Amino acid sequence: MPNALPVTRAQNFASWYQAVVDQGDLAEESGVRGCMIIRPWGYGIWQRMQELLDKRFRETGHENCYFPLFIPLSYIAREAEHVEGFAKEMAVVTHHRLKMINGTLQPDPDARLEEPLVVRPTSETVIGAAFQRWIRSHRDLPLLLNQWANVVRWEMRPRLFLRTSEFLWQEGHTAHADQAQAVEETLRMLEIYRSFAEDTLAMPVAVGEKPAHERFPGAESTYSIEAMMQDGKALQAGTAHYLGTNFARAQNIRYQNEQGELAFVHTTSWGVSTRLVGGVVMTHGDDDGLRLPPQVAPRQLVLVPILRDKPEDAGVVEYCEAIAAELVRASAFGEPIRALVDKRGGRAVDKRWGWVKRGVPIICEVGARDVAAGVVTLMRRDRLRQGEKLNAAPMPKAELIASAPQLLADIRAALHGEARELMDKNIRTDISSYAELAAHFSDAAGEDAFRGWALVPWSRPQGAALEKVEQQLKALKLTVRNAPLAQNPLNGRKCLFSGEPALEEVLLGRSY
Amino acid sequence: MPNALPVTRAQNFASWYQAVVDQGDLAEESGVRGCMIIRPWGYGIWQRMQELLDKRFRETGHENCYFPLFIPLSYIAREAEHVEGFAKEMAVVTHHRLKMINGTLQPDPDARLEEPLVVRPTSETVIGAAFQRWIRSHRDLPLLLNQWANVVRWEMRPRLFLRTSEFLWQEGHTAHADQAQAVEETLRMLEIYRSFAEDTLAMPVAVGEKPAHERFPGAESTYSIEAMMQDGKALQAGTAHYLGTNFARAQNIRYQNEQGELAFVHTTSWGVSTRLVGGVVMTHGDDDGLRLPPQVAPRQLVLVPILRDKPEDAGVVEYCEAIAAELVRASAFGEPIRALVDKRGGRAVDKRWGWVKRGVPIICEVGARDVAAGVVTLMRRDRLRQGEKLNAAPMPKAELIASAPQLLADIRAALHGEARELMDKNIRTDISSYAELAAHFSDAAGEDAFRGWALVPWSRPQGAALEKVEQQLKALKLTVRNAPLAQNPLNGRKCLFSGEPALEEVLLGRSY
Repeated sequence: MPNALPVTRAQNFASWYQAVVDQGDLAEESGVRGCMIIRPWGYGIWQRMQELLDKRFRETGHENCYFPLFIPLSYIAREAEHVEGFAKEMAVVTHHRLKMINGTLQPDPDARLEEPLVVRPTSETVIGAAFQRWIRSHRDLPLLLNQWANVVRWEMRPRLFLRTSEFLWQEGHTAHADQAQAVEETLRMLEIYRSFAEDTLAMPVAVGEKPAHERFPGAESTYSIEAMMQDGKALQAGTAHYLGTNFARAQNIRYQNEQGELAFVHTTSWGVSTRLVGGVVMTHGDDDGLRLPPQVAPRQLVLVPILRDKPEDAGVVEYCEAIAAELVRASAFGEPIRALVDKRGGRAVDKRWGWVKRGVPIICEVGARDVAAGVVTLMRRDRLRQGEKLNAAPMPKAELIASAPQLLADIRAALHGEARELMDKNIRTDISSYAELAAHFSDAAGEDAFRGWALVPWSRPQGAALEKVEQQLKALKLTVRNAPLAQNPLNGRKCLFSGEPALEEVLLGRSY
Repeated sequence: MPNALPVTRAQNFASWYQAVVDQGDLAEESGVRGCMIIRPWGYGIWQRMQELLDKRFRETGHENCYFPLFIPLSYIAREAEHVEGFAKEMAVVTHHRLKMINGTLQPDPDARLEEPLVVRPTSETVIGAAFQRWIRSHRDLPLLLNQWANVVRWEMRPRLFLRTSEFLWQEGHTAHADQAQAVEETLRMLEIYRSFAEDTLAMPVAVGEKPAHERFPGAESTYSIEAMMQDGKALQAGTAHYLGTNFARAQNIRYQNEQGELAFVHTTSWGVSTRLVGGVVMTHGDDDGLRLPPQVAPRQLVLVPILRDKPEDAGVVEYCEAIAAELVRASAFGEPIRALVDKRGGRAVDKRWGWVKRGVPIICEVGARDVAAGVVTLMRRDRLRQGEKLNAAPMPKAELIASAPQLLADIRAALHGEARELMDKNIRTDISSYAELAAHFSDAAGEDAFRGWALVPWSRPQGAALEKVEQQLKALKLTVRNAPLAQNPLNGRKCLFSGEPALEEVLLGRSY
């Protein structure tokens, strides 16, 4: 039985990714450089992520709001003065009207904006300006906001979901009375991201703090979750920043404390984006397409009636719909099961492979013979094949209805287990010199060969020492992903780069 | 007892609106011309609208997706050729990078886009291009899509929610095999809007078809729901368009029908926006602030414990939380009741008026004496006053828990009834000449005097005759709102403008 996709992971991981995204009905190029069209199935996955994250944000006291798409250039300039290394690849609006001139529609020279507007790359500046107006007293703190929005960062080498000029995300922005509370908030949101990645997306992650040179510009500390893709590269899947009083000072955000004194607030920001969809593809996909963790699958179980344009078709459809109706009344992960009967025309086998490529966790085919026997022919997407054959077996319909919640939980656990194993097996902890590092990460076995990550001792070099390390890393196309929060004893080990006593261990890897 | 707002509807309706929006925590100016900040309570209302509409869209077979924010100028130009009167007030992106030049951050001249990008004012063009790629055969039809997005139409005279340069909306876009199915879809979505406005927002609307000169550019027919605000003006609250094959021809969207022939699809589009929030304010607000229809209230019932910084405070809070816990288990309108215990510091009376201005349907105050008596002091926001006094009365807690769903239903019905009465009483049906129309709508009683609408016979004038009518309407600041779907018998009446035999009745009014 050939693979459902024209290219395998082993043959060409990048092409395979593109094939999953395309044939899984996830997204496509739009014709506008770097901007993607998120197709219904892909958007359905993102909407599930939104619903589940939004619930967690609300449960932890955050309120949603909405800030403008456009940021005056002067806001950006003010921030840029304070923040070196500020990325400047932004979309700039300079006119507010089109005009037909000599038969060509073009920006109207009479409608040039006095001050150009930047399409938000992130909203710290505009939200900070609002904080400055809204916060007066310690009673106004903590201020816990979140927004779901589109943002734009111009990309020269876009890739669907992973790096697009426009993407969808949430950005949390909070203000606190002191450092302790702001750091607590930062770590709380980091933990929500970790748990969402592991429990909901079945995507294991390394949770840790970024080294100083990888911090968000203006942050005191930046934390991330990093997932290992099936090609061994890292995907930064979410970040949370403790911003100290840096933004508060730049924007004069002060409050009157209980002693009646004015003090700067401590702020945080944190976000995840549609990039997570790409992470799910590269964590769980196989050579037949996507495999979806059940909690974010728009449909968790699809019943495909095998129709033959004969009178008995109606009975087959009715049988499927009765099962679906019972499943919707059952609950998995605390929500009604999302079941669908695929009544479209076309060959059942084509419909089956369509759902396989979309990654539906459970696919059930039902023909007239299944109806007579009171069964469905069940396939688990996480175990689609048994050797060269399709792993499909009859299951009595009552058993399906009774066991669907457990089946879905099993599938989540199986996907998580597979991914966990890949990650655990592929973090080298025995590399103790740059030469060994270079040997492991060399391109000798091919640029795209699987390498995984390395966990190495690190002395937090600075200045010229850091510059040298960055060059060494760059030569191997590596970056420091993060210093895991869970650290092993250092036992006096020395930094792999500086030879100085190590202060912590950090993860190194290639990344998206 | 003075009003909670500094200005009444009668004194100055526009200032009153601004006060409700500001003091109800709904939205504020952002500093970016025409763009608003939607504050948490205002966004909460919009999010409720989204959730409830999204459910209805899905139940009728629509799928969500997401198309790019940016549209190449050439797409717009192509459409502009086919659509006269195309609005050209759009934000235009011309550069993709900022650069520090002589100490000033500015658009980088080396990063000028080859083709300017327009920030979407609506997405027909870019979605049509995708339809052209996706639709091959009659099996691909109907194609039923929706997107939730921000759009930008440059506004010179912005008003929060009602007319903003950036607003949030949903835009449905569908393609069908023939006219009958496309018109059926258009009317189906119009009916969803009507029912959402009436049943969910308690906002009565006139449902009808726009006259030819008020159609969406490129539409064969445009339908709208029109609500009467408390100043007698009309608010167009939602539109649905049957686009015929106009967009299909411009973009070459064809399918192979069952006979194997290529045919153009028939398309529709339909949308509602954050403008609905402004409509709710002007339909239901009173001189104490907002009054929210319960289904879109972020909190339907708020318990305000009266705290005195004494040991018995803990018991009062506990009592409130026990009630809230029971309410959350109860269900109103098919969802758990959204109850909140407002434990913030500050005076209880200030908290009460804060919730009044935000429009929470039921407010319960609880002091130590209420706890002892097993009651709450209940206020219904729709009947806040009795003469000059606050209309507050004790209710046993068991009765509150048992009756809350019915109370919320009663409040919805009461709000709808009040608004229905205003609308029914203020549509003149007895105006039979332009002179009478001019007398009724003259500015003699003041520009902002309440006038309501007029339902008049109409012969669908065209060409020069229509131009004359438009001038006559403009002189009275009127527009044709729509021709109601429910028509009265014409009995040979003549058009008020042309004197020709009438073909239908239309509603005239001033509008937002």
